[in-house]
Amino acid sequence: MTITITAFERSPDGGMGLARDTRVRWVLEEAGLPYKVRPVSFSAMKEPAHLALHPFGQIPTYEEGDLVLFESGAIIFHVASHHPGLLPENANARARAITWMFAALNSVEPPIFDLTNAKIAERDQPWAKDRLPMVADRVRHRLGQLSARLGDAEWLDGAFSAGDLVMVSVLLRTRPSGILNEFPNLAAYVARGEARPAYKRAFAAQLAFNTAQPAVG
Amino acid sequence: MTITITAFERSPDGGMGLARDTRVRWVLEEAGLPYKVRPVSFSAMKEPAHLALHPFGQIPTYEEGDLVLFESGAIIFHVASHHPGLLPENANARARAITWMFAALNSVEPPIFDLTNAKIAERDQPWAKDRLPMVADRVRHRLGQLSARLGDAEWLDGAFSAGDLVMVSVLLRTRPSGILNEFPNLAAYVARGEARPAYKRAFAAQLAFNTAQPAVG
Repeated sequence: MTITITAFERSPDGGMGLARDTRVRWVLEEAGLPYKVRPVSFSAMKEPAHLALHPFGQIPTYEEGDLVLFESGAIIFHVASHHPGLLPENANARARAITWMFAALNSVEPPIFDLTNAKIAERDQPWAKDRLPMVADRVRHRLGQLSARLGDAEWLDGAFSAGDLVMVSVLLRTRPSGILNEFPNLAAYVARGEARPAYKRAFAAQLAFNTAQPAVG
Repeated sequence: MTITITAFERSPDGGMGLARDTRVRWVLEEAGLPYKVRPVSFSAMKEPAHLALHPFGQIPTYEEGDLVLFESGAIIFHVASHHPGLLPENANARARAITWMFAALNSVEPPIFDLTNAKIAERDQPWAKDRLPMVADRVRHRLGQLSARLGDAEWLDGAFSAGDLVMVSVLLRTRPSGILNEFPNLAAYVARGEARPAYKRAFAAQLAFNTAQPAVG
């Protein structure tokens, strides 16, 4: 069954791999599943055809036969739960790996997303400069806690899992700010994720997608 | 096997049901599972004993024999995936219900949490008053999209599921701001959730917990 995901026609990051299609490409590469990518422009994302797939008008979406999913976490969970090697077989270990998926998305990504908002969406607001250090410190606080938990372990809980895939994908968004490198064990953890062949393929694919020459109309 | 969760010794909301133990109590009530609650003080939450259970020093946590979980979404998923009636049997419907769990936690709750931050944590900042309308509008934008998707349906996708349980739990946090009531279909959706006997039991239990007379030492 053909899998089709959506991605920004042109990612705002120009192919740095920070857009959320990258993490979906990654899990599909880990699972060895071929997929097609349908580009969506910023205007098309707000049109009824795309909103029927994604109520919040974002990317990525996932189509597989009759199944339509949105939310990168849900897509990753769907792929991981149907292919071996991404979630432990042992029930308790599996529940803990899923916990890290939720932790990445509900406890770690929100302050990181806020920092992006403070830097970009609120850039021209009169409070932008004064407020930024507080927002950055919230990211530091959360990364400090995660760093303490990870310690010198290779992955968050035993072998690499979908929990690590999501956490690495979330954390690498803090590299441009310099905050990731304040936590050497987290920076090394992210680097281990990025060194996986599946990540490399996913990254290369989104880069090629985002830097392709536009068709001359 | 005894289930023990943690909750604030005294919730900052005084028992309005906005703390995240309420949603875990709710899923346990839906599943018909008895549970114990261990109160954690704000100082104890930052101590090593609690951090061993929850790396971010928060509540709730979930203990069941050897299994320790944190993150309300992960706990709800764990309970829902082991008890009938909270996730559809059909594979595609199940994947969609799980999608709503992730959507509630990664796309709907973050702007709501930001609004709480803007009102409380940043209350005394010089930008507080000027910035608040922008933060509230982000919540309105997301709730408007969700309202459009829900339409006049009873639940988000067919029968009540853990996806609705999480979404209702997230949305009811917008009631104190007045924003929930700007979307009558979402307000009615939340009210349907709150009318479920399991929710009523969960709410009553957290209220009793938060309003109990402290032991006289």
